[in-house]
Amino acid sequence: MNKNLIVGQSGGPTAVINSSLYGVVKAAIDSPEIDKVFGMENGIEGFLLGNVLDFQEALEPNELELLKSTPGAYLGSCRFMLPEDLDDPVYPKLFEKLNELNIGYFMYNGGNDSMDTVSKVSRYAEKVGSDIKVMGIPKTIDNDLVLTDHTPGFASAAKYVANTVREIVTDASVYETPAVTIIEIMGRHAGWLTAASALARRFDGDCPDLIYLPEVDFDCGGFVSKVKNLLDKKNTVVVCISEGINDAQGKFICEYDSATGVDNFGHKMLAGAGKYLENLLRSELGCKARSVEFNVSQRCSSALLSKTDRDEAVMAGEFGVKSALAGETGYMVAFDRVSDYEIECSLQDVNEICNKEKKVPSTMISADGTDVTDEFINYCKPLILGNVEVACGEDGLPKFAYRK
Amino acid sequence: MNKNLIVGQSGGPTAVINSSLYGVVKAAIDSPEIDKVFGMENGIEGFLLGNVLDFQEALEPNELELLKSTPGAYLGSCRFMLPEDLDDPVYPKLFEKLNELNIGYFMYNGGNDSMDTVSKVSRYAEKVGSDIKVMGIPKTIDNDLVLTDHTPGFASAAKYVANTVREIVTDASVYETPAVTIIEIMGRHAGWLTAASALARRFDGDCPDLIYLPEVDFDCGGFVSKVKNLLDKKNTVVVCISEGINDAQGKFICEYDSATGVDNFGHKMLAGAGKYLENLLRSELGCKARSVEFNVSQRCSSALLSKTDRDEAVMAGEFGVKSALAGETGYMVAFDRVSDYEIECSLQDVNEICNKEKKVPSTMISADGTDVTDEFINYCKPLILGNVEVACGEDGLPKFAYRK
Repeated sequence: MNKNLIVGQSGGPTAVINSSLYGVVKAAIDSPEIDKVFGMENGIEGFLLGNVLDFQEALEPNELELLKSTPGAYLGSCRFMLPEDLDDPVYPKLFEKLNELNIGYFMYNGGNDSMDTVSKVSRYAEKVGSDIKVMGIPKTIDNDLVLTDHTPGFASAAKYVANTVREIVTDASVYETPAVTIIEIMGRHAGWLTAASALARRFDGDCPDLIYLPEVDFDCGGFVSKVKNLLDKKNTVVVCISEGINDAQGKFICEYDSATGVDNFGHKMLAGAGKYLENLLRSELGCKARSVEFNVSQRCSSALLSKTDRDEAVMAGEFGVKSALAGETGYMVAFDRVSDYEIECSLQDVNEICNKEKKVPSTMISADGTDVTDEFINYCKPLILGNVEVACGEDGLPKFAYRK
Repeated sequence: MNKNLIVGQSGGPTAVINSSLYGVVKAAIDSPEIDKVFGMENGIEGFLLGNVLDFQEALEPNELELLKSTPGAYLGSCRFMLPEDLDDPVYPKLFEKLNELNIGYFMYNGGNDSMDTVSKVSRYAEKVGSDIKVMGIPKTIDNDLVLTDHTPGFASAAKYVANTVREIVTDASVYETPAVTIIEIMGRHAGWLTAASALARRFDGDCPDLIYLPEVDFDCGGFVSKVKNLLDKKNTVVVCISEGINDAQGKFICEYDSATGVDNFGHKMLAGAGKYLENLLRSELGCKARSVEFNVSQRCSSALLSKTDRDEAVMAGEFGVKSALAGETGYMVAFDRVSDYEIECSLQDVNEICNKEKKVPSTMISADGTDVTDEFINYCKPLILGNVEVACGEDGLPKFAYRK
């Protein structure tokens, strides 16, 4: 008897998480072995509350195609961890709900924490002898999942970073007044996205001048003196930092001002590492300084999608469905770089992935810790290639799919 | 005898100020009455220091075309006001330099302060009987110049705002947790750009939920209670504010925290109106809140150029050159909306424009001051139409023209 498929999204959205959703839904609809295609609304948390949609009913005729270039998470997301103890009553409850819907294939699209869910659901299925196939589809702009060359979502965010840094450099270069621009980029523990700012350079010596990742101990004194040396030579200095830069004791730079920056209500005004360093430069060097925080646009810009990323995200979704249909379970779809540049999908044991974190290796960071090496450039460059033409409405703005 | 033309850029850059530069340079090169086409490096300030380039020498073969979609200010900019007193010795010095280069046509591309320069240079020319024709080409994302339907640069910034607000709404809608996102948009005194956030809406009741312009007195208590009412009805609340929102006494909201927000060095941490209101909501309502500052990307994004804006910016530059060749002087090129939607260029007395500021009229603001009316929507909608395909390099990123 044919089975149904259910798919959920979890964790922070990316610009292409819905491209993977498209890949899953399209492959499932096209598979004669699968009857119905369901979506969990707001991930496993919403599913446990009974929030399920039927894709064939929910999507208007052309909306499936729109999904491919819709940022955010169409199904809604959650940040919900299943209990460690597989004897917890939530598991039989979950499987009862899955069985009610005659689910044979459980696809979960997310990052590190979501792979933890895939691990637990697949282990519980094995424990109780359920034949539901459980598969993880990766996504994260942080690019910090192990056992895969990179993750869907990273490349579009990297393209946003490189493109926008280049534009800001163009903007920052118009005045003769010496000035420093600090750009704060997402990445609490891994600096992959900040490293991508190096791709903005058009020639030797072009901005950004300094790149700081969380992988390297940050030293405020060294930073100030490097900026001072640069200002002796050039008027426009641009520095890219990860939000998570931290000192040798592991203290985040964004926490340095927490004791003093307090608003009228006595609440901490945590202004971010960029704001802190902007202030530091003004007070130590007396120079003009400003900071720019890329914020959520780096993960939800549809105008700067990487076609490579978008196509790979779709491919990951499709591969997940095909693998589940072939009887595989407990895996995450991973990317293997087989040549420069070609990607093939493989399956990796999800238990070896969840709760681990891939940081930028030291070979991709320059000796003095303020730049990346050619090894990183060669790694990252092919990922951002190709532009996506996003469907445009009569209002001149992008058309996105959304739940009604 | 043929004369030469010189063009300068001044004030903050926009995404299409170089499109106008393209229009000027192209029209000048194509005019048999004009020999050489010069550029002032860093505006009138750089010109007085002798910093001049010859476009035919400076631009590589295909770079003129690249100018059309290059953000920033190719020539460099300045913030320099000529003295009020036309008897000041800077004027004969300036005209000596212009005569040395055999300049017959002086084009200046900028906003309010730049039109002040056009006014003074043209009045001095008249005073001394110089036949140099002086023409202002408008630009400003603020859209605050009088006697013109709108200004080049506004529409692309408005498109960035509408597009990016729509994306952020998509991103903000993924969780079930009630949360408020505050988006801070440029505009110290005029709210045109913030008003454009209304174009992000896809259906009645879509975000943004509240739009606050500097034209309306801002009341923190009223703001908090409106947000509270919204959170009773929906989980995702998005508020767009101008950076320049101010209270009934004219005090900027971003200055509210100046007494208390102090960093380790005792320096003021002016965190912006968005950050202030984010904190206010957390303390008053105990809700999740975050703020996003669009910062410089709203004026330098090449990915979200409005084709309408780009084409009009080119047209303004061309029209300025043709008008100067026809003997006109002391004018700014203006846009007249002759139908819905068609624009014709006209000339407006620059003395009637400089040092004035066009604010959003009350008929474009809703009665309770927290939204725009259909009059604004109808005004703004056609301006953002059309996408521009920006030249892309082998690195997958936009190719920009820049001075070597």
